[in-house]
Amino acid sequence: MTDKIEGHAVIVVFGATGDLVKKKLIPALYNLYAKKIIARRAPIIGVARGALTKDEFVKLLRFDEFIPNGEKKTLSGFQEQIYYLSLDLGESRNCTDFAKLVQSLGKRHGSDGNILFYLALPPSLFESAVGVVESSGSLEAGGWKRIAFEKPFGYDLGSARALNDCIVRVFQEGDIYRIDHYLAKELVQTILVLRFANSIFEEIWNHKFVDNVQITVAEKIGVETRGNYYDKAGAVRDIVQNHLLQILALVSMEPPKSLNADHIRDEKVEVLKALKKIQPGQVVIGQYGEGVVEEEKVLPYREEKFVSPRSETETYAALKVYIHSKRWKGVPFYLRTGKRLAASFAQVNLVLKDAPRGLFLEQESGPAPNVITIRIQPDEGVAIEFNAKHPGYGMKLHPATMEFCRPCQFDMNSPEAYENLLHEILRGDQTLFTRWDGVKASWEFVDPVLQIIKNRKKDFPDYEAGNLGPSDAERLIVEDGRKWCLPRKRDAAAG
Amino acid sequence: MTDKIEGHAVIVVFGATGDLVKKKLIPALYNLYAKKIIARRAPIIGVARGALTKDEFVKLLRFDEFIPNGEKKTLSGFQEQIYYLSLDLGESRNCTDFAKLVQSLGKRHGSDGNILFYLALPPSLFESAVGVVESSGSLEAGGWKRIAFEKPFGYDLGSARALNDCIVRVFQEGDIYRIDHYLAKELVQTILVLRFANSIFEEIWNHKFVDNVQITVAEKIGVETRGNYYDKAGAVRDIVQNHLLQILALVSMEPPKSLNADHIRDEKVEVLKALKKIQPGQVVIGQYGEGVVEEEKVLPYREEKFVSPRSETETYAALKVYIHSKRWKGVPFYLRTGKRLAASFAQVNLVLKDAPRGLFLEQESGPAPNVITIRIQPDEGVAIEFNAKHPGYGMKLHPATMEFCRPCQFDMNSPEAYENLLHEILRGDQTLFTRWDGVKASWEFVDPVLQIIKNRKKDFPDYEAGNLGPSDAERLIVEDGRKWCLPRKRDAAAG
Repeated sequence: MTDKIEGHAVIVVFGATGDLVKKKLIPALYNLYAKKIIARRAPIIGVARGALTKDEFVKLLRFDEFIPNGEKKTLSGFQEQIYYLSLDLGESRNCTDFAKLVQSLGKRHGSDGNILFYLALPPSLFESAVGVVESSGSLEAGGWKRIAFEKPFGYDLGSARALNDCIVRVFQEGDIYRIDHYLAKELVQTILVLRFANSIFEEIWNHKFVDNVQITVAEKIGVETRGNYYDKAGAVRDIVQNHLLQILALVSMEPPKSLNADHIRDEKVEVLKALKKIQPGQVVIGQYGEGVVEEEKVLPYREEKFVSPRSETETYAALKVYIHSKRWKGVPFYLRTGKRLAASFAQVNLVLKDAPRGLFLEQESGPAPNVITIRIQPDEGVAIEFNAKHPGYGMKLHPATMEFCRPCQFDMNSPEAYENLLHEILRGDQTLFTRWDGVKASWEFVDPVLQIIKNRKKDFPDYEAGNLGPSDAERLIVEDGRKWCLPRKRDAAAG
Repeated sequence: MTDKIEGHAVIVVFGATGDLVKKKLIPALYNLYAKKIIARRAPIIGVARGALTKDEFVKLLRFDEFIPNGEKKTLSGFQEQIYYLSLDLGESRNCTDFAKLVQSLGKRHGSDGNILFYLALPPSLFESAVGVVESSGSLEAGGWKRIAFEKPFGYDLGSARALNDCIVRVFQEGDIYRIDHYLAKELVQTILVLRFANSIFEEIWNHKFVDNVQITVAEKIGVETRGNYYDKAGAVRDIVQNHLLQILALVSMEPPKSLNADHIRDEKVEVLKALKKIQPGQVVIGQYGEGVVEEEKVLPYREEKFVSPRSETETYAALKVYIHSKRWKGVPFYLRTGKRLAASFAQVNLVLKDAPRGLFLEQESGPAPNVITIRIQPDEGVAIEFNAKHPGYGMKLHPATMEFCRPCQFDMNSPEAYENLLHEILRGDQTLFTRWDGVKASWEFVDPVLQIIKNRKKDFPDYEAGNLGPSDAERLIVEDGRKWCLPRKRDAAAG
């Protein structure tokens, strides 16, 4: 699958000296180049404040480290079309240089006036960057103009709206690519295929068969170097508002009219709008204390770099969410995320109701509910836990698993998330990107969650690093007579 | 699971010098002994015409060959309780010896009067054997008396009834164990567990979701040394009447009231009675010619040992069967079996209907129907074929498989079929055995099939050994717009 796309466009990267660019964007662009999806007609302009030459910029990208397997000739061809512009976003007088460079490179490389503006910037600089783009007149020539940027899409509904306003003043919604890199993960994309291309799943995907749904993004790592950002954000803004709600939307949405990006996003937005307003009892938060992770003693959150020693920021959140819809009547969606947990994994579990007839109930170990697990990472795959016959005499039950392990069955490697995302942006397909009404709907749900968290009396830290999260999270689900699904690693014995 | 059972009974094996006894029965009894399920209180009496001493009989059983892993001390303990009686079933005067031996060994070993009579005999000798049992007075003392025997349960409905009459004259239905060794296969037993202990399967197991069901017992081997029997029987009597219809019954039956043997058998009989009368267009037969199997040239059926050179016996049969029931309205069950086919495998395939919405229909390779496969042999397991996302860009489909491989996940070995069957007979559980009304119902269905075959103009041989069967079998399903499922080997790449 190397369908040729409209890979001619000047790619302007704001914030080009940052980590994201060298670690993710440039390697992703290199891969597209190596696969001949982009070529000579897609020059890349790094834009940042530092006064660097092109060579210094290329050196700074540390290809040796981040593209260790790059092929020499391909690498040098790729590097040739990387350019650099020093520009202080605070000073609009630089617009002329910007305008000239973008225009001349577009001509030289035959980019047909297409330009992608990638904001690898903190949101506080979005307005200035958009201002530069606008004043430079780059938007006026023919060809498409697209803008791409990442979360955080605001700090709450109000700030998200302000941020959005400054973008939509200049760009059309159809040209705005809001990146949630989770949406580019293979198994997240697989959710729609699983649901709508398979009668076995389509038919049971509703309240008649599903007892509860669990969506987990658990991390072993702590806050690392991101304390500055994280301590202001917390787990709900960092993960729940975007990744968890996006996965929830894909898992719970109604079938779209078609696979067209807007039809899919229409249904995602509908289900986000249908989230029932959260109640305080449905929210659990926590913050990690010291503990042991991988046999190493680790610091409590409050002693991490750039974190306030009296921080009341949550590093763990678990929510019980209901959707106001016929399909999901009465089905709780349990969401959870946290840092410094016992394992790193992201998965969706659909726990099915019991088989309708109680033929096996009298057995010592009655039938366990069937669980469909979508493993997003690690060990991407799909598993169904079911009840098999215990080997040997009689008709006793034994839990068993049916496994689909993606990397084992498909020998083709998947593109990394950013490669996939850039590919889609260049193709002009918005399926993997969030639309403003979706972002808005998720903030409308999250704002009251943040209010509940703000008002809650905190007694942090309340879970040990390397642990399973606060005991309240256990209570949240146990009091409903249910339990959290364990990380569902690929069953090595399954094949 | 080594539940102690009521393992005290004299085990009388008629036809004790035959192949079945040394290859299957004695090794199975040894295993039960080695697992301490039977012990000192279960003496074994081999009965046959030949004048052998106990030692000669034991030697004839060739333990070295058939129980190669037997533990020395255990073996000698086991051998000690094997006895032999020479008896010509044609001559009733031997009844006294028989009566004495059974009685005295029962006493010596403390078998409490329990006796299992196992007829490892051709059906033509059943009446004599039952006569000996009756005249010997062995049925009169206290304790249970059970009788076990194998197919063929007759040659048609009439002969089956006659055979049955001679048994039920002396034994109660509740003491008669009709063996279909397929019913003791782990994955055949699993069918009920899969269906009734798992909501994910229970819900789709009907005409709303299932497009068609395929049941296959395919063999690579030819008729081997069984030409004498087989040439009179043919594939329909040898496999369809028993194995295929028994599997069909388990796959299609309504949920039983309980797991009680008679409740299960009630429902199996109901569905056999509900088979719609077959029409000539629903029957395909064939006979193998010469060909190549495993790179070796093999004989055509008509040149096999003990086979008539003008034989019109079918070595292949495929049927399209409908069940008159709400659950299976309009769903064809395609059954097939044959000798000298390209592969040896036994499996059930439920081919599901397409996912209801055509979201993916426009794609080059639209969604394939989901197929649930129960692999009976080899590679026992369950697999679901489904549509996954093609790895990489976009939302294209790619066929994938979820696998449950029984021997991989359960490290416990299953007992061999005969061990399992003997265990159940000694426990007195008739679940794995066919009841007379079930046998009768299957003959009622099969008699018209035999009539159609008899009347058909044959042009044998019509398929090459090592091939997929006659071309008519292909046509039978293709003209319905469907296709045969391929042997579903365990996907080694799946894990």
